[in-house]
Amino acid sequence: MKKGFVYIQSGGPTAVINSSLYGAIMEAKKHTDKIEGIYGSLNGIEGLLNDRLIDLEKEDAETIELFKQTPGAILGTTRYKLPQNLHDEQYNRIITTLNKHNIGYVFVNGGNDSMDTCHKLHRLCEELKLDIKVIGIPKTVDNDLAITDHSLGYGSAAKYVINTVKEICIDASCYKKGKVFVIEIMGRNAGWLTASVDLLPSYARPDLIFLPENVFDLEKFLQDIKTIYEKQGHAIAAISEGIIFERDTSSARVDAFNHIQLGGAADALTKIIEKRLDLPTRSIELSLAQRAYCILLSKVDQDEAIACGAFGVKAAVSGESGKMVVITRINDEPYATKLELADISQIANEEKMIPSSMMSGQTKMDVSFERYLRPLIQGEVNVKYEDGIIASARLKKVLI
Amino acid sequence: MKKGFVYIQSGGPTAVINSSLYGAIMEAKKHTDKIEGIYGSLNGIEGLLNDRLIDLEKEDAETIELFKQTPGAILGTTRYKLPQNLHDEQYNRIITTLNKHNIGYVFVNGGNDSMDTCHKLHRLCEELKLDIKVIGIPKTVDNDLAITDHSLGYGSAAKYVINTVKEICIDASCYKKGKVFVIEIMGRNAGWLTASVDLLPSYARPDLIFLPENVFDLEKFLQDIKTIYEKQGHAIAAISEGIIFERDTSSARVDAFNHIQLGGAADALTKIIEKRLDLPTRSIELSLAQRAYCILLSKVDQDEAIACGAFGVKAAVSGESGKMVVITRINDEPYATKLELADISQIANEEKMIPSSMMSGQTKMDVSFERYLRPLIQGEVNVKYEDGIIASARLKKVLI
Repeated sequence: MKKGFVYIQSGGPTAVINSSLYGAIMEAKKHTDKIEGIYGSLNGIEGLLNDRLIDLEKEDAETIELFKQTPGAILGTTRYKLPQNLHDEQYNRIITTLNKHNIGYVFVNGGNDSMDTCHKLHRLCEELKLDIKVIGIPKTVDNDLAITDHSLGYGSAAKYVINTVKEICIDASCYKKGKVFVIEIMGRNAGWLTASVDLLPSYARPDLIFLPENVFDLEKFLQDIKTIYEKQGHAIAAISEGIIFERDTSSARVDAFNHIQLGGAADALTKIIEKRLDLPTRSIELSLAQRAYCILLSKVDQDEAIACGAFGVKAAVSGESGKMVVITRINDEPYATKLELADISQIANEEKMIPSSMMSGQTKMDVSFERYLRPLIQGEVNVKYEDGIIASARLKKVLI
Repeated sequence: MKKGFVYIQSGGPTAVINSSLYGAIMEAKKHTDKIEGIYGSLNGIEGLLNDRLIDLEKEDAETIELFKQTPGAILGTTRYKLPQNLHDEQYNRIITTLNKHNIGYVFVNGGNDSMDTCHKLHRLCEELKLDIKVIGIPKTVDNDLAITDHSLGYGSAAKYVINTVKEICIDASCYKKGKVFVIEIMGRNAGWLTASVDLLPSYARPDLIFLPENVFDLEKFLQDIKTIYEKQGHAIAAISEGIIFERDTSSARVDAFNHIQLGGAADALTKIIEKRLDLPTRSIELSLAQRAYCILLSKVDQDEAIACGAFGVKAAVSGESGKMVVITRINDEPYATKLELADISQIANEEKMIPSSMMSGQTKMDVSFERYLRPLIQGEVNVKYEDGIIASARLKKVLI
């Protein structure tokens, strides 16, 4: 019996989150023997909760092609957390939606919080013995998903961060008497994205790099900044948003997964530098642009995103469930990988930090880190512009 | 008699400041009958003050080719302000350097503050009856230079701002319950760069746009934000760094031209929104990346930067001095311009604001603004990458 396909985008967008959707749709269209109905859930799991599914087959081929260069989550996203108790009334609503539309395949494209959603859906279907396959597609610029060699979206975000920080470093160093720049980079509790700037050549590299995996010593930081500034007339530090030091976070908000809203670390540090060292400063948060900049895609990342979306569909139609697609690295150079499946239970809510073997002291990475990252930022994608502005997809959003 | 050529980069970098230098060098090489020695002054006027000139003919052709995609000011820059009194000892030092190296042509590539330097150098040479031609090349992402239709660097900066804000708007609107985003854009007292986001299609355009040319009404702003947020679950405002409202700027620094260091307006506004409206916010300063992002160049801007550099050299060797190259627009569509010269005295220290005819109410631009800006962001430049990182020029800096 043919069953419907529903795709969920969840958590923060990446530059390739819509590429995975593209890959999944393209693959689903090949399985007309098993799949009938290719739907998208609006705003993540909320679409299943509120019966808000759209028919992706009503969208033009041209629109779907543009997914590959469209930022944001084209289906809308959410940080909604499902209750722990599978007998909660909310799950009835989800089941009602799934049954109403004869859904047999559910795909959740997200990070570790979203894999929690994925895991709960899978357990629900198992408990109720529903013939619904649930598959996770990895996604996060933080690169902190367990088991997979890396996460989709990380390569493009790293490419953006590296190139943008290169520009900032060159710009910042062209005055004889410059400032102290503190550049804040995303990544939550993992330093993968911040560490990427270590690949820059020394003339265009931050002087200091601070990852949340290491203890942040504020006094040492101030001393180092002072020494560097006195020597070269400017100083540049790249810091991860997740580094911990004493500051006022009383007004910070907390999300549904109980994660504190990060951001503001660079700003707080520059204020301390101004006060303690009396040096001119500038704090730079790379902010939202770093996570979904489709103009600076890594071709490798995009290709993998498409492939993982397709692989997830193949796995589901072959009967797999409760698994996430993982990328296993075979070789660094020439870069070679294979796609596999891993149990969602091993991934949901886990956080993968940078291993200490990839670090060399406090503000420098080991060469093994470069071997790891370099292949992930390779290849450029020529995006399509319309009159000077990048073209992006717009959905008709025909509800089913 | 053959004379030396010295090029000065001054003020904040743009994405095409080094393209103008490229154009000037290429042109200078054609005038071997008049020009002997193609030099660069390190860190703007400071190079003339301290006799720090480098021989640009010692640089590889490949390096000079890369100027076109190198951020920052490749010769180094400065915000140093020359004294008003032409009999100040500092001018003796400049004259000494100019004479020592037999300089006959001085080019100052900069904005309105830098044209002040250019104007003083010209008056000095006139007063002392020195056979030295002084020519200005316009440059500023703020687009606030008088007389010229637009400034070099503005088109590329606008292209970056438009495309980056588009991405942020799409990203920001993919949650059902989102935040209030306040995006801060450069431009000093002129709103040209901020206004550029008006070209975005409505689904990816900030809800509100605030320019320093208009009075900023904080109460009205808060009311509008509240209404918009309640209606759509998020709100996005693009503000110019130069908008004025009551906030603490006591710790802000002041540069040599007595300009207050801007930045922080978005941060201040989001704090007010949090306090007054109790809504979740995020402030985003586009910061340094917006002024010199060589990955997202406007081809029109780059071509014009090269042409203006070359035109300046032609003007100097034909005997012109005390002039700045200006771009005169002949037609919007098809876009057509011609290069001319204007008296530096009419440009130095002047600021060109957006005329009210280009605005339509407080937060919307008139169609005439789009006709003005659209041609300036046209055309993409395929930059060269090395292993995933944009290639940039590095000078040998051989002092003469």
